[in-house]
Amino acid sequence: MSPVDIEAIVARALDEDLGGGGDITTAAVVDPQRQGRAVLVARQDLVVSGLDLAAEVFAQVDEELNFEALVSDGEPVTTGAALAEVSGSLASILVAERCCINFVQHMSGIASLVRLFTLRLEGSSVRLVDTRKTRPGLRAIEKYAVTCGGGNNHRFGLADGVMIKDNHILAARSITEAVNRAIEGAHHLVKVQVEVENLDQAFEAVDAGATVLLLDNFAVPDLRATVLALRARPEILTLEASGGINLDTVAEVASTGVDVISSGALIHQARWVDIALDVDPS
Amino acid sequence: MSPVDIEAIVARALDEDLGGGGDITTAAVVDPQRQGRAVLVARQDLVVSGLDLAAEVFAQVDEELNFEALVSDGEPVTTGAALAEVSGSLASILVAERCCINFVQHMSGIASLVRLFTLRLEGSSVRLVDTRKTRPGLRAIEKYAVTCGGGNNHRFGLADGVMIKDNHILAARSITEAVNRAIEGAHHLVKVQVEVENLDQAFEAVDAGATVLLLDNFAVPDLRATVLALRARPEILTLEASGGINLDTVAEVASTGVDVISSGALIHQARWVDIALDVDPS
Amino acid sequence: MSPVDIEAIVARALDEDLGGGGDITTAAVVDPQRQGRAVLVARQDLVVSGLDLAAEVFAQVDEELNFEALVSDGEPVTTGAALAEVSGSLASILVAERCCINFVQHMSGIASLVRLFTLRLEGSSVRLVDTRKTRPGLRAIEKYAVTCGGGNNHRFGLADGVMIKDNHILAARSITEAVNRAIEGAHHLVKVQVEVENLDQAFEAVDAGATVLLLDNFAVPDLRATVLALRARPEILTLEASGGINLDTVAEVASTGVDVISSGALIHQARWVDIALDVDPS
Amino acid sequence: MSPVDIEAIVARALDEDLGGGGDITTAAVVDPQRQGRAVLVARQDLVVSGLDLAAEVFAQVDEELNFEALVSDGEPVTTGAALAEVSGSLASILVAERCCINFVQHMSGIASLVRLFTLRLEGSSVRLVDTRKTRPGLRAIEKYAVTCGGGNNHRFGLADGVMIKDNHILAARSITEAVNRAIEGAHHLVKVQVEVENLDQAFEAVDAGATVLLLDNFAVPDLRATVLALRARPEILTLEASGGINLDTVAEVASTGVDVISSGALIHQARWVDIALDVDPS
Amino acid sequence: MSPVDIEAIVARALDEDLGGGGDITTAAVVDPQRQGRAVLVARQDLVVSGLDLAAEVFAQVDEELNFEALVSDGEPVTTGAALAEVSGSLASILVAERCCINFVQHMSGIASLVRLFTLRLEGSSVRLVDTRKTRPGLRAIEKYAVTCGGGNNHRFGLADGVMIKDNHILAARSITEAVNRAIEGAHHLVKVQVEVENLDQAFEAVDAGATVLLLDNFAVPDLRATVLALRARPEILTLEASGGINLDTVAEVASTGVDVISSGALIHQARWVDIALDVDPS
Amino acid sequence: MSPVDIEAIVARALDEDLGGGGDITTAAVVDPQRQGRAVLVARQDLVVSGLDLAAEVFAQVDEELNFEALVSDGEPVTTGAALAEVSGSLASILVAERCCINFVQHMSGIASLVRLFTLRLEGSSVRLVDTRKTRPGLRAIEKYAVTCGGGNNHRFGLADGVMIKDNHILAARSITEAVNRAIEGAHHLVKVQVEVENLDQAFEAVDAGATVLLLDNFAVPDLRATVLALRARPEILTLEASGGINLDTVAEVASTGVDVISSGALIHQARWVDIALDVDPS
Repeated sequence: MSPVDIEAIVARALDEDLGGGGDITTAAVVDPQRQGRAVLVARQDLVVSGLDLAAEVFAQVDEELNFEALVSDGEPVTTGAALAEVSGSLASILVAERCCINFVQHMSGIASLVRLFTLRLEGSSVRLVDTRKTRPGLRAIEKYAVTCGGGNNHRFGLADGVMIKDNHILAARSITEAVNRAIEGAHHLVKVQVEVENLDQAFEAVDAGATVLLLDNFAVPDLRATVLALRARPEILTLEASGGINLDTVAEVASTGVDVISSGALIHQARWVDIALDVDPS
Repeated sequence: MSPVDIEAIVARALDEDLGGGGDITTAAVVDPQRQGRAVLVARQDLVVSGLDLAAEVFAQVDEELNFEALVSDGEPVTTGAALAEVSGSLASILVAERCCINFVQHMSGIASLVRLFTLRLEGSSVRLVDTRKTRPGLRAIEKYAVTCGGGNNHRFGLADGVMIKDNHILAARSITEAVNRAIEGAHHLVKVQVEVENLDQAFEAVDAGATVLLLDNFAVPDLRATVLALRARPEILTLEASGGINLDTVAEVASTGVDVISSGALIHQARWVDIALDVDPS
Repeated sequence: MSPVDIEAIVARALDEDLGGGGDITTAAVVDPQRQGRAVLVARQDLVVSGLDLAAEVFAQVDEELNFEALVSDGEPVTTGAALAEVSGSLASILVAERCCINFVQHMSGIASLVRLFTLRLEGSSVRLVDTRKTRPGLRAIEKYAVTCGGGNNHRFGLADGVMIKDNHILAARSITEAVNRAIEGAHHLVKVQVEVENLDQAFEAVDAGATVLLLDNFAVPDLRATVLALRARPEILTLEASGGINLDTVAEVASTGVDVISSGALIHQARWVDIALDVDPS
Repeated sequence: MSPVDIEAIVARALDEDLGGGGDITTAAVVDPQRQGRAVLVARQDLVVSGLDLAAEVFAQVDEELNFEALVSDGEPVTTGAALAEVSGSLASILVAERCCINFVQHMSGIASLVRLFTLRLEGSSVRLVDTRKTRPGLRAIEKYAVTCGGGNNHRFGLADGVMIKDNHILAARSITEAVNRAIEGAHHLVKVQVEVENLDQAFEAVDAGATVLLLDNFAVPDLRATVLALRARPEILTLEASGGINLDTVAEVASTGVDVISSGALIHQARWVDIALDVDPS
Repeated sequence: MSPVDIEAIVARALDEDLGGGGDITTAAVVDPQRQGRAVLVARQDLVVSGLDLAAEVFAQVDEELNFEALVSDGEPVTTGAALAEVSGSLASILVAERCCINFVQHMSGIASLVRLFTLRLEGSSVRLVDTRKTRPGLRAIEKYAVTCGGGNNHRFGLADGVMIKDNHILAARSITEAVNRAIEGAHHLVKVQVEVENLDQAFEAVDAGATVLLLDNFAVPDLRATVLALRARPEILTLEASGGINLDTVAEVASTGVDVISSGALIHQARWVDIALDVDPS
Repeated sequence: MSPVDIEAIVARALDEDLGGGGDITTAAVVDPQRQGRAVLVARQDLVVSGLDLAAEVFAQVDEELNFEALVSDGEPVTTGAALAEVSGSLASILVAERCCINFVQHMSGIASLVRLFTLRLEGSSVRLVDTRKTRPGLRAIEKYAVTCGGGNNHRFGLADGVMIKDNHILAARSITEAVNRAIEGAHHLVKVQVEVENLDQAFEAVDAGATVLLLDNFAVPDLRATVLALRARPEILTLEASGGINLDTVAEVASTGVDVISSGALIHQARWVDIALDVDPS
């Protein structure tokens, strides 16, 4: 997450909550001179993510506020843990409260779900990655949250990796043609990945020059056999499994010998975790 | 959702996915002259939401594409239902695909969860509403999705309603003082709502002039008794229950006689539903 | 006014004045090393508004400038009063001068006009409010200026209050139907206001559930009678008078017993007051 | 006014009015299928300005609306005149109404005031111009409105003309030095103007090479004498009078033989004229 | 180049040229009703690039203009060739003229220089690519222009390829450590490239897992020997030469057997070619 | 260059380079705690321009970095000269490196070329200026770079000077008519310039009131004769020569007695100079 991105995403979130007349409750009810202190507290076990966003929310609302993170992004904490504290104008803290928590709840929700997966993969060298199935406009923070949970990121967008899917193959009329065009057309720092449904397709892709294969929706026994057959090839291949992988199946999929397991569910099936801001007017 | 908002949110989503070098796979693999047709298909039972966003995604990628919605937002559909179709440049369709589906999966996921709640409330006049616990930058589309599921919206942001919470009360030192300040400070088209924990607080709030009460985290019997006691007051009050309400409890909470049930979970516990774009190169 | 809004509105104003080649006069004529000091001075009696904007203008032009407000927004001052002072690079002060004064003259003009009205209302509990008749893009600062003059704000925009006007009634075919739809459609923290022309309409609106009435363009005797009749209703109503109210009539209108007097003229009939920046090169 | 500017200024105005939840009244009350027609009507004698902005407001709210201007910007019209009409979705018309009228009332208010001045100058060849005393962010439309009233524009901003004022002279230590630096520093398509207080200063400025003089706050007899003395110079000079010129004095000032009369009051003392949108649901 | 990018870059360019008061010459001199037709003409032999930008410039200035490209981007043309024509409002054409030509001259200048290089490489399979040495904010259009000249693109930015340079190696303390970290940290669709100065470094990089080598500033005989030695490795390597390659040396460098030749000079040493807009008022 | 402009142009450049996933190489390879120091070094003789942009790049990437300019913009330096140094987080320095250098190489390239021209004009009072032939979106920094090389700027854009070219004359049907309209239509601080091809046109323009003439593409003897003839006129004229002027001809053109020589080539024929960032991890 670049500083510029963080600034923009927080500005949008604040504009959304404060647009028009601002926080009319706090403006009416809270004495502007009043000081206070607040602690961001975990209300359940969770993995923390988003403290930089929280800091930026408070800074944009009132640059005089003092914000201090008490844990680091990526740390697993238990119920009751204090994640950060902020002090200064009480009104400013209350104005920023919901916007701040929304970021941390959302991101920690993802990090916490990802951690459930990575715990299942302990001892395995497989790389667990997300996909481009992310909420519009929030990809940077959602992918960052995946890393807080111990996962890795797949390509960020359409520009930083070639992935030839079924529709591209249809458009090019064959895997071979699609891979050839991709190698010709893409720059030489990106690999060419092909989504395949069976071993024949996999071999065609590799023969054409693809070095990463997406083995999509394979049953585990088929996946195991396919990995075995592909490892017998001389080329150094990266094998990625995807498709409906869940907490129950992820370890077994990893045992097939694939290098990478990708799952959009890491992000789009995550739910918010419970976090609150305990405010203490002084 | 205003047209201006839709345009901006889609532009950001596309920029996120195409930023830098664009869709390098499609650019390399798909003949720019090739035409195609694609259908957005439900892969599970769901309530549709987000077709205007889908249309805008395709329009921004290529204004020559023809997009037609086949169902309406808010319609429940079953597995296999065709939601929309688009035709034109195959490359443009593929470039837009993921971004389009991300909107519809996310919004339909919310609409579908909300519908599960509203089905439990059939026959009841209670109003089910969301909260400000929304993903940063996506509030407009998430709140719209709630209405597609049959729910209603709470205030949009901090400007369009006064809600006095515990921290505001602490800051003002009493419910009475907080309500007085709010009535004095806010404009005369917004009501003053107070979050209360018990009947004493509720009476204090009403005596001070509040007309909406948020009964937060009441056990159902307490809630029922409190509602009864408050309905005996001469003032016309709007009573809102919130706090950990779920599919199992929502009907019982509604039976207590509250006017409104609010739940952040309608949005932040929703998961994406399964939707795909079936592409057919011509 | 949120910090984010202030920053954006000042950036636009500076861009407008400096766009293209910047301040070519100062760049050519003033030695960049030269220091100076300037005082913002009232050239007539006025009520001050806009000093935060003035501060932001100088900060954006040159973050090294030292700006200090000498009075507070909302203070009435007399001719010759020093409102603020700024010191630092003389060139920077001259670049910022006009843009700074434009904000303060405009906002103080509104505050000063509003104060003329509020002085006429001394001893009355009526609330004097503005409308949505504001200059495009400047609503936040114009509404803020109204409060500096002792007035209050009506709703900020179309989102934070329901106001059913004649055209809405025409569209819904009756006041009753319009109010019913509004109560059903709007969220439960906004009140429903109806613009009415006579007592019959007022009663229909109240019967349907409206709690705020806009009594538009009533002659004072009619207004007084209507207020009397409506106060006899059991409902707690907010009665707002509007329509051609001026300095001569405002006290009489207030005497009719309405709760609120609204006037677009507070903003759109205000003229700039005379303020200058006296610069003193060191 | 460039198309790009118009688009941006209207988008900001709409965002201001619709930000957050949009027009909740119209959304709740008006059937989205309902069609209608509306006429923009002058409620007093006025000079029209801003119809392009009105058109853009309607277009941005709903590109399906049909807008037609019935008069041209700059035309004087009398009470009751129809200025434009719009037809299409009734809801869209109502959403856009206030924003549209705000532009036209504001701009026509300026045009109408300017026309009062230009009528006093009939038969004179003097050029009546505005200044940079404009509302922040609205300069383009305010200066355009001046031309609709028959006035002319002074420089747009700090980049398109050199004007050496008293503070610049103080900074450069003499008029001669300031003019020399300006001629040296500015590009060769802008003239150098100097603000002078008496004939000695005027001669020093001309001797140094200035070709435009701002004769600020001269009494009329002094102004007449100064013009006479300066016209005796061999150089072709442009003489501009400014300072407290009003409707009563403008003709007399023009009679002194100056080329240009400038007045910030054309814009900042203008008040809105009365214009309404008469809506007719079909 | 995405449509969204093109729209934004053109809007900025127009704002730069028209900011403030717009085209004051055309506004004063050209009758707004006057129609005209203009042809974009090559005044030297060149390779065309940028016609989409030209089209967008005219469209943004006046959507009523009719623009037609007469050749395609990437086509080599000779002096006098008509590249595009536009017709409609003469004033609009003149307002857009310079901004339009600036795009086409700049981009065609790059395309034309690149073509000189690619002509030297005819018969060779080497890939000629650009670098990230591009003018700030113009990377998308400059890289596109390279492809018009027959070149290819290197990675777009820092996100779509790993390139370990000397400073990264210093930071990681060894090539091996840097490559290990990169493979671990980057996603699995990007290759790891290492900039090396000699064969030892090259072997260390390949042993660590790098598959792309940047052979920077090698003398041609050294380059030839290094390529030979590296081709003897079992891994499939992509070898890129860079550093001071010019028209005189590029063919010889290509003859060494490298896969890729990269050169920032393709873009930053390109000069504008001569193109004019011949206008014909009707 | 205004601070606001610099901030925006740097933000765009960084977004371009870091968009999507950011600097994935540095993120993977460089320890975030590692400190470093880097020096911006001239690799050839050059005139420096762009150090403020360099400073802003580092500040936006990481506000903790310490940047210090060691020379001033406009200074000629020799190979090996240290231009600036920066210290702090090594990773931040590497992320910012290319973006920073791109600005300084581009701008110093222009300044260095301009200096070659101004050296040829030593002893002459002629003013060497640029044109509006600038790269889209970069005009402010390119025109600034011209001044660093000892040149001057022509008008910034279409708003700050009237220049009547052949097409305007065609549109107005005569030089006289065009000049009359321009004097009437433009504000009184801009001069009217006319592009002429021969003495007859020049006389017509001056008779009509133009005071600046663009003598375009005159052969030197013709130019000399034309200047002589025009100097005999009583009006004070500014004579500008343009059209294919290069290093070999510029001194001779200056000797003809023109006041101004304009050349788009100062900017669009400039090539980047060689500058590097030498990084030293601590």
